[in-house]
Amino acid sequence: MRHQVVPVRHGTMRERNLAVVLGEISRRQPVSRARLADATGFTKTTVSSLVATLAGAGLVREDGPVRDGERGRPATAVSVNGDRVAGLGLEINVDYLAACVLDLGRRIRHRHLVAANNRGRAPERVIAGLTSLAERAIAAAGDQGLSVAGAVVALPGVLDRRGGRLRSAPNLGWSDVAAGELLNAGLPPLPLAADYDNEANLGALGELWFGDGPELGSYIHVSGEIGIGAGIVVDGRVFRGAHGFAGELGHVVVDPGGAPCACGGRGCLEQVAGQEAILRAAGMAETTATSSASPDGPLSALVARLEAGDERALAAVRRAGESLGQALATAVNLLDPDTIVLGGIFSGLAPWARPAAEAALAGGAGVVRRSPPRVTVSRLGGDAAALGAASLVVERVLDDPAILVSQAAGTAT
Amino acid sequence: MRHQVVPVRHGTMRERNLAVVLGEISRRQPVSRARLADATGFTKTTVSSLVATLAGAGLVREDGPVRDGERGRPATAVSVNGDRVAGLGLEINVDYLAACVLDLGRRIRHRHLVAANNRGRAPERVIAGLTSLAERAIAAAGDQGLSVAGAVVALPGVLDRRGGRLRSAPNLGWSDVAAGELLNAGLPPLPLAADYDNEANLGALGELWFGDGPELGSYIHVSGEIGIGAGIVVDGRVFRGAHGFAGELGHVVVDPGGAPCACGGRGCLEQVAGQEAILRAAGMAETTATSSASPDGPLSALVARLEAGDERALAAVRRAGESLGQALATAVNLLDPDTIVLGGIFSGLAPWARPAAEAALAGGAGVVRRSPPRVTVSRLGGDAAALGAASLVVERVLDDPAILVSQAAGTAT
Repeated sequence: MRHQVVPVRHGTMRERNLAVVLGEISRRQPVSRARLADATGFTKTTVSSLVATLAGAGLVREDGPVRDGERGRPATAVSVNGDRVAGLGLEINVDYLAACVLDLGRRIRHRHLVAANNRGRAPERVIAGLTSLAERAIAAAGDQGLSVAGAVVALPGVLDRRGGRLRSAPNLGWSDVAAGELLNAGLPPLPLAADYDNEANLGALGELWFGDGPELGSYIHVSGEIGIGAGIVVDGRVFRGAHGFAGELGHVVVDPGGAPCACGGRGCLEQVAGQEAILRAAGMAETTATSSASPDGPLSALVARLEAGDERALAAVRRAGESLGQALATAVNLLDPDTIVLGGIFSGLAPWARPAAEAALAGGAGVVRRSPPRVTVSRLGGDAAALGAASLVVERVLDDPAILVSQAAGTAT
Repeated sequence: MRHQVVPVRHGTMRERNLAVVLGEISRRQPVSRARLADATGFTKTTVSSLVATLAGAGLVREDGPVRDGERGRPATAVSVNGDRVAGLGLEINVDYLAACVLDLGRRIRHRHLVAANNRGRAPERVIAGLTSLAERAIAAAGDQGLSVAGAVVALPGVLDRRGGRLRSAPNLGWSDVAAGELLNAGLPPLPLAADYDNEANLGALGELWFGDGPELGSYIHVSGEIGIGAGIVVDGRVFRGAHGFAGELGHVVVDPGGAPCACGGRGCLEQVAGQEAILRAAGMAETTATSSASPDGPLSALVARLEAGDERALAAVRRAGESLGQALATAVNLLDPDTIVLGGIFSGLAPWARPAAEAALAGGAGVVRRSPPRVTVSRLGGDAAALGAASLVVERVLDDPAILVSQAAGTAT
């Protein structure tokens, strides 16, 4: 019985080689063709031909001369071209829509966040709003000479990526939405088909590229507001599980026999440490309903009470932190990350929630590993997921440049 | 800021190409050089040269003629050579030592399990026993014309793979053992350096190759006896986490505020569903001490009571199954596998523990995913981890044949 695992393969050797050379350029830039030949094992002729193809598609460019260490002769350096191709990241959230454009060097070229009350609005109407945001972003990119290769959309809910459906986004009041179909119909046509992922995964990717970066190692990024999600990043890639449902930290049970959860379980983390649960425990349940239309209304009211030393608010947030730490201890025992990043509501609540979270984490996950993982606080703002989404487009182009290359060739003929 | 993820790279293009061709041969065998050229994009000349190198190292061989579908002309087929190179899997467990030899086709060529009471024995003495088992296995392989490329050892404990140390193996009474050093000193020299991993990970790999195979998809394999571990397999590879500590299912908290655990936490799964906890709950605590030297003494006594309908034993195992299901629900929410495989003590207890486990799993992990993962029972015996260990050696040779090729070349000159 043999069943070797099949690695991801590109269609042809030339497509694979284009990806190999572009990968080396993006890691070593600026880099001479001679060093690229050393690094890849290709002949200099092959390297030159591949570089010419990538340059023709606007993916790399020649910079000034570099001096090759040993040989001393100046050579022309090749770098990723940050001025021709871009990725578009979009985000639908409860209180806002966001768009951002990154060039291939992951510089932010356009960033737009529009407050919007999307609760209970029909998916078609929300996506129409997103379409106009996307069109403005693509126009803004065009004004800078950038051509958008593709778009990824961050959605706040449980996605069935195989079926192309958004199963549920309780805070939007959506269930079983044909997200893939609606987005592909609603967004402007781009070389790469529109894709989507949940905001927990994309927010975690945003942290990799615009937060603390590679020093995070493998990490769990806690996100979410009313719900609690986690994005798991291993070796720079999101770990999604078999069906895209990995990272449901909000449904880790921290209080068996506790309050019933919409998921069918009892005592899930969300029931203790989700935004509404914290506000209720802090005696602020009514605040939620009245100020829910403003992006961070109830949360900033909570922070004000915490700063004022309100005992009930402090106790509620400590309790939430402790439960979060318990759930994270379980996640650490199963996933063994280097770092935990507190994002979502927990970044704002960190001064009060983090000590309890760290204590619970150390108690539950300290001995097997000797030391619990480092806990950091996200410094990214509301559109972290949109940044992560645009990064994912850039990653796809760098991983598989052939799609843009063949389109460039098609245009030329 | 740029920090592209660096993929695993082989040293030179030829080394990489050898791996590509061997991978295609192992997936498509028997396969003609013409089809290999199609599949890899290499020229037929390059394919022929790579195949000749692999054949020279005993990794592939020519079979009889195959008929190429479209062209109709018979061609010589190439296959992985199962008769020259082998992998050695070894296992140190509380009650036994095991060795097995697999050829490159993963056929079992030698399998040897020796009962031994290793509790409290010095690591050096246990490894001396393992050395003699390894020597006999290598001799047995040699008698069949097989040359052993490397060995992997399964250990029942928490490993720090970066530091080369076995941090603790409580059931052996070992802590902080320089496992890497002792094994490399104790085992016969082989082309690949001796490596080791914990029995949960290697038992899980055994399941992939000798149990239900690829139909498992991504899965969590529950193992362990006194402790409870889990091997997580994603896309055919073990998911180890940042430091090799992933899969500590036994320390998922199922009863906050429950019995204290050696890990420093309270109410860990092991404290409810580990072998000793079950025996205690079944009123069989004394049995453990007296019959612990026999491989499955206390467990077979428990099974006898279950078969006889002993109410206390049935309740203890149901409770264990329920807690296991709770912990697995948490693991499913975080990892989203296709399948759960019950191994270790739970394979023998499955008729009584599984219904409660499945009910708890459905309650805690059913709604987000719509359906909980399939639960299967391992059919592998005691040396599953040794089989997984030998498989890992085979996997390494197929992934990177260059190490054996250069040694073969070195021998020839």
